[in-house]
Amino acid sequence: MKFVRYNAGGSDSYGILDGEIVKEISGPGYSDYSETGATHSLGDVKLLAPALPKKMLAMALNYGSHLHDAPAPERPEAFFKTHTSLVGTGDTIKIPTDSEKVDAEAELVVVIGKTASNVSLDDAMDYVFGYSCGNDVSARDWQASDTSWWRAKSSDTFSPIGPWIVTGIDPSSLDIEGRINGVAAQNCNTSEMIHNIPKTISFISKYVTLEPGDCIFTGTSGTAGQIKAGDTVEVEISQVGTLTNICG
Amino acid sequence: MKFVRYNAGGSDSYGILDGEIVKEISGPGYSDYSETGATHSLGDVKLLAPALPKKMLAMALNYGSHLHDAPAPERPEAFFKTHTSLVGTGDTIKIPTDSEKVDAEAELVVVIGKTASNVSLDDAMDYVFGYSCGNDVSARDWQASDTSWWRAKSSDTFSPIGPWIVTGIDPSSLDIEGRINGVAAQNCNTSEMIHNIPKTISFISKYVTLEPGDCIFTGTSGTAGQIKAGDTVEVEISQVGTLTNICG
Repeated sequence: MKFVRYNAGGSDSYGILDGEIVKEISGPGYSDYSETGATHSLGDVKLLAPALPKKMLAMALNYGSHLHDAPAPERPEAFFKTHTSLVGTGDTIKIPTDSEKVDAEAELVVVIGKTASNVSLDDAMDYVFGYSCGNDVSARDWQASDTSWWRAKSSDTFSPIGPWIVTGIDPSSLDIEGRINGVAAQNCNTSEMIHNIPKTISFISKYVTLEPGDCIFTGTSGTAGQIKAGDTVEVEISQVGTLTNICG
Repeated sequence: MKFVRYNAGGSDSYGILDGEIVKEISGPGYSDYSETGATHSLGDVKLLAPALPKKMLAMALNYGSHLHDAPAPERPEAFFKTHTSLVGTGDTIKIPTDSEKVDAEAELVVVIGKTASNVSLDDAMDYVFGYSCGNDVSARDWQASDTSWWRAKSSDTFSPIGPWIVTGIDPSSLDIEGRINGVAAQNCNTSEMIHNIPKTISFISKYVTLEPGDCIFTGTSGTAGQIKAGDTVEVEISQVGTLTNICG
């Protein structure tokens, strides 16, 4: 199933996407929900970031092709992104005028469905609600110059996710393509992750409690492409969809 | 004024502390609020972390005495802490069994009152609601071994704040003392900050939008003291109060 968050007539709502019809639901739908009866054509609504996470984490160094000269990490290497950097498909990524180099990073995003604290490897996937496309926008100069990656990875608009959350798929072998102005910049398959999704969730939850709606960006591959004002950037993931943003 | 968050009879509420009387208010009180008429004796309620921030940032290397051999940072050096690490006064800091060294860091916490995006140095203090005591609990081995400080600084219970938020004080020259089992481990004055509060707020807000309730830990001084299960750790700040936690 596809879960969306959208604005229609000035109000933000959650919904289920059935073909080209958006059916409004009563809540985020991570556990129980019910249809309100209201429906819209997909073309009549503005899609929003499909989750409102209280917490976002992202994985560093999780694809061999992105390691360059670095050794493979022994454990999942997480960092925080903050919710004020979220935008949805169709929204503008604002390229800061005082960064010299901003890159797009195409990634699979895991959306958590249930509170997860100290969950085992065997149980970890029970805490997943679904999957979305994400772009872990990264200002490389700040990533190099600052003690932490707070503004390098979480400046406003630096966390596009969308267009929706897909549930009920197997995430272990999905193709991911990042494109800039229609040209492929990154290609990988989720089977190439160094630390897979269950290991990542189990490890994070040993220390930091995950909550419904929380998002985990699962890492990027290869050499990410630079983006500039005017560019169109896409993240396409098989069985999930395509997240499209413009840069301004 | 002193603003509290508390549990009484199983319900969490916000309130104003008037002497030893807690007067319930209708909301967090960052802008408008009204008294509901309900009151409690301070001794009859369980104080909670006084804010529910969507975002917490903390400052690295913001006191000369904490720099050791590092150069003074040219700009405010922020990092994220996450809300699931929050606890209030009287709560237990859980010392992870798999960390070799956990330190307490006594800090002044700034609580934001209004949405702040790209605010000037001159206007920055208009966005402050008030101040609290904070303990930026830090697992030193993870801080050294991991790519980011996600679990080193944000493991569950690693962000005690409290006992309340004090408004209407001048934060530019407050004494901070950190104590472990009653013995002073850290002493400083907020006048010693390398980057002061207006500069910190203005700089952060240039990149990351701050929202009401968001908290900024403003950095620690000297050499923080190690804490172990069974220890009592206190952060006392003049004109603010004393935050007390036990370690388990």
